[in-house]
Parts: sequence; structure tokens; C-alpha cells
Amino acid sequence: MTWGLALDLLGTFFFAISGSLLAAKRGFDIVASLLLGSLTGLGGGVVRDLIIGRPPAAFDEPIHLIPPVLAAIVVFFMSGHVQRFWSTILIFDAVGLAVFCTTGTVTALDHGMNPIASLLLGVTTAVGGGLMRDVVANHDPQLFNPRDLYAVPAFAGSALIVAIWQLGWDGDVALYSVSAAVLVFRLLSLKFSWRVPNAHLVRAGQRRD
Amino acid sequence: MTWGLALDLLGTFFFAISGSLLAAKRGFDIVASLLLGSLTGLGGGVVRDLIIGRPPAAFDEPIHLIPPVLAAIVVFFMSGHVQRFWSTILIFDAVGLAVFCTTGTVTALDHGMNPIASLLLGVTTAVGGGLMRDVVANHDPQLFNPRDLYAVPAFAGSALIVAIWQLGWDGDVALYSVSAAVLVFRLLSLKFSWRVPNAHLVRAGQRRD
Amino acid sequence: MTWGLALDLLGTFFFAISGSLLAAKRGFDIVASLLLGSLTGLGGGVVRDLIIGRPPAAFDEPIHLIPPVLAAIVVFFMSGHVQRFWSTILIFDAVGLAVFCTTGTVTALDHGMNPIASLLLGVTTAVGGGLMRDVVANHDPQLFNPRDLYAVPAFAGSALIVAIWQLGWDGDVALYSVSAAVLVFRLLSLKFSWRVPNAHLVRAGQRRD
Repeated sequence: MTWGLALDLLGTFFFAISGSLLAAKRGFDIVASLLLGSLTGLGGGVVRDLIIGRPPAAFDEPIHLIPPVLAAIVVFFMSGHVQRFWSTILIFDAVGLAVFCTTGTVTALDHGMNPIASLLLGVTTAVGGGLMRDVVANHDPQLFNPRDLYAVPAFAGSALIVAIWQLGWDGDVALYSVSAAVLVFRLLSLKFSWRVPNAHLVRAGQRRD
Repeated sequence: MTWGLALDLLGTFFFAISGSLLAAKRGFDIVASLLLGSLTGLGGGVVRDLIIGRPPAAFDEPIHLIPPVLAAIVVFFMSGHVQRFWSTILIFDAVGLAVFCTTGTVTALDHGMNPIASLLLGVTTAVGGGLMRDVVANHDPQLFNPRDLYAVPAFAGSALIVAIWQLGWDGDVALYSVSAAVLVFRLLSLKFSWRVPNAHLVRAGQRRD
Repeated sequence: MTWGLALDLLGTFFFAISGSLLAAKRGFDIVASLLLGSLTGLGGGVVRDLIIGRPPAAFDEPIHLIPPVLAAIVVFFMSGHVQRFWSTILIFDAVGLAVFCTTGTVTALDHGMNPIASLLLGVTTAVGGGLMRDVVANHDPQLFNPRDLYAVPAFAGSALIVAIWQLGWDGDVALYSVSAAVLVFRLLSLKFSWRVPNAHLVRAGQRRD
């Protein structure tokens, strides 16, 4: 197993934990736990692969299905404990975000997508699964929460990978350093509660409609 | 018309009834009735075909569109009656589930997907349409309801088909007997209210969060 | 730039405005504004292209991404004003509907889809983006509102294009005249509040369930 695959499976696992936890919180059953976990961990990559036009890796290589199954088992037996370690989970979710935005972008570039599309597909890989989790569970997407800067580090990481690729400067070192930078960016944004501007300019004293 | 196609169209029809009925219950219009019926009856197969990488049968062979149109017409004129026959509908929905999990798995195996992916694509064919219906209608998915064992018979049926295929024992007899077994399993689960464990272990006296 | 592409980008822009405005109304952030705008403006076409089996134009030709970015900027700075001009937006949204149902149908026919599938893919191109916007934003789809006749002009336009194509009578003139007819149909439906029948027959004195 390569380091890339190991990181990928680790990212899938922690994304899947968030999906299975949501199923537990909403009183859904273990089918939902498996499905929401798989959607969160694998959904972004499946959409990326469908748009690229290649067979989705999650279906082509069954090893990708192990992390969501493990996540559903962990949540089933340790749900109370998992929620107590929420801040730990946020850190590992950040690992998933960092890994997926870079590997997603590289996958798209490798398959001949143009730089802009590759950037968008990298972001899709990183945030698409979480978006699907919330849409299927009938929630307002956490991705749209102005109090959390979730998509921005992924966007920055994908853009950096594209820039490095354009400079002909690719290689594993670039992949790992950008992933690490995204991780640090995301963790800092959590620590200092950085936020994203609202969808419209909220002026002082203006009432929200 | 082969028996396989006839069963498939019958399954589509009863799935579509549930989509059109949901549109009627929510006060939506006939556009919604047609669309939710089509999504429920055809959506699972379309996703399966996109992942396999072949043109979706629902678009390739327009005959698949007739059942959802009929279902919308039936619900339009007989909505009150249809709801009175709810238990009859559940039986026919079970037929759809039984047919779709087996034909979906065989379709995937026939197109060279690996056994695990074929199992998942069979389940997707069977339960994907109902999931889309609830997501688009802005509902909590019924699939996630711990009081109903909906996905489990589909999973068992798809797994059996894959096992039989692995043993080189395929053929129409296997297809029909597994479908019948799934149907019986589903009907028994309805009669005796079998349920699926929750997403997390609920201990005695433990409060739900 | 051809007239067809210019119209397409204009349609995308006004569809994207409705997505970004919804993000603003719900208190979401600019990430949501960009994403909901892009989904509304481009989502229908992406689904059409995935079903046809060609690389989605939105990813293949980055020029399609400019309108959603502009829309998010416009909504960010002028949200109050944009909402004051709501009737103007409805007119331009009607332009999008008219353009997308005809160009979507022609795209499907050009790629060898059968007439019925092409009709459906034309309607998908026109109304799919708005449906995705509402599903992701966790709303009841406006498309299902019996008080608004949104999908019907798109359906009529796509059917006309298919009929003209069958007669061997294609060409830009047909495209533009059908688009204009759809636009007039949609604007008249807004002016006179034409409505679609409910999903089930509501008899006088019958209570809604």
C-alpha cells in the first residue's frame, strides 16, 4: 500500500465518522449509518470520477469501502465516546479535507482536465461528500455556515496544486507540502474562528430579511 | 416482451406510484407527480448505469417511461382510493424491491463490475429511487427509519446473486428464485415488523441526544 | 463568440442570480452563494451531459464559470437592489428557461439521443438547475408549486424542437423562434397566473390530506 492510498483511506474514515455520527444523532438506523458514512467519505470522489469520465474508484477498488464500514461499527459501539472526542474528530476531518483537495486535483489533472476544472474537481472531492451527507439527511449544509471557513482551505490547496503543476514542478513532495499547508490553514481557522463573508453585504444596522 | 422486462416495468410502476402519491400528499402539482414518480421508479437504475458507464436504460429505451406516466395518471384520478389500498401498494413495492435488487446486480456483473461493486449497485438500483424521492421532496428518507427493514432484503438478494454468479451457477432460474426469496423476506419483515438496529447502541436508560 | 453561446451565458447568469439570492436570503455565506449560483446556472446542463455521456461543458469550457462568479458578486454588493427588481429577474429567468430548453434538446439530438430522451434532456437542462438549488438549500422545490407553470413552457419548447428536427426542418431560425415562443408563453403564464393541476384531483368540498 502506498502512502497516498493510506492517507486517502484515513481521510475517508474520518469523513465517514461524521456521516455515521449524524445518522446516530438523528435516530436513523445502521443502514443510514453505512450509507451516510459512505456518501461523506466517498461521494465527492465518485462525482469527480463521473465528471472526469472514469469508473469511480470507490466501486473499482473495493478497499475504499472498508473505512465507511469501520466508521459505522465504531459509531455503533462508541457513539457516546466519539462525541466526547469531537475536537479530535475535527482535526482528523481536517486531515481528510487536506488530503482530498490535493489528491482530487492531481487525479483530475492526470486525466487531462483543464486547470480550472481540475481546481473545481479538487474542491468537489474535498467538500462534495459532506454536502451530500447534509442534503440526504435533510439538513442545511454545514458547508454554507458563515461561521466556518471550510471550503476556503480546500480551494487554496487545489489552486496551489494547479499552479505547481503549471510550473512543471510536480511530484510527491509538492503533494505532501500542500496537504500539510491546507491542514495548518484549516486548523488555524478552527482555532481562531475565522469566518467567511455572508452571501450579501450586511451593512451596520441593516436588518436581515 | 421478455418476462424480465415485464417484471421490470411492473416494479417501476409500483415504485412510481409511491413517488406520485408523495407528491399528492404534499400538495405538489402534476409536474411533481411525474418527476417524483419517475425518480422513484427509474432513479436507482440511472445512477447504476452512470457508475457502470453505459447509457441509462431509462433514456435509451423510452418504454421505461410509460409506467411513471401511468402512475401519475392513476394517482391523479384515484388518489383517495390508492391511499385506501396502501397495504396492497406495499406488497407491490416489495415486488419492485425484489426485482430491482436482482436485475440490478446482474446488470452490473454483466458489464464486468467486480462482485462487491455489483452487490452495491444492485442495492442502489433497489433503494436509490426511493431515497431520491425523499431527498427531492425534502423529507427524512424512509430508508433510514429503524422501524422498517427496507434495505436488508435487497442487500441479501444482491449478495445471493453475486454468490451464485461466482459459483458459475447463473441463469434465469436463479434470478427468479432469488427475487421470490427477497419478496418473501420483505413481506415477512412487514408482517412481523422486524426492525434494524439504530445507528448507535442505545443502552437501557440511556437518553437519546 | 456565437449568438448561441452568448444567450447561453446570459441564461446561466440569470439562473445563477436566483441561486445566489437564495443563499443571501437564508443567511448562508459566499461559498454557498457561488455554489448555489453555479448549481442553478450549470447543474441542469451537467446532468444532461453525464446522461449523454460527454464531458460536461461547464468543466470543459471554463467560460461557463464566469456568469456564476459575476452573479455572486452582483448579489453580494447589491442584494437589496436585486430583490427590489424581482419582476425584472423573473423576466430574465424566463430567458434562461427559453434558451436552455431549446439548446438542451438540440445538444441531446446532436449526440444521437432518441427523440423522447432528447425532449426529457431539454427539460432537464431547463429546470434541473433550479431543482438542485432547492434540494441543496433544503427547500421544497419551487418547480412543484401548483401556482406556477414553470416546467410546462420548457416541455412545450423541447417537444417543438424535437418535432421540427423530425421534419428535417432544423437550423438556427427554428431554434430562435421556438425560444422566443417559450419566452412569450412563460411571460404570459406569469402575467395571468396560469396554474398547473394538482398531483391529485381535488374535488369541490374535498379536504386536502
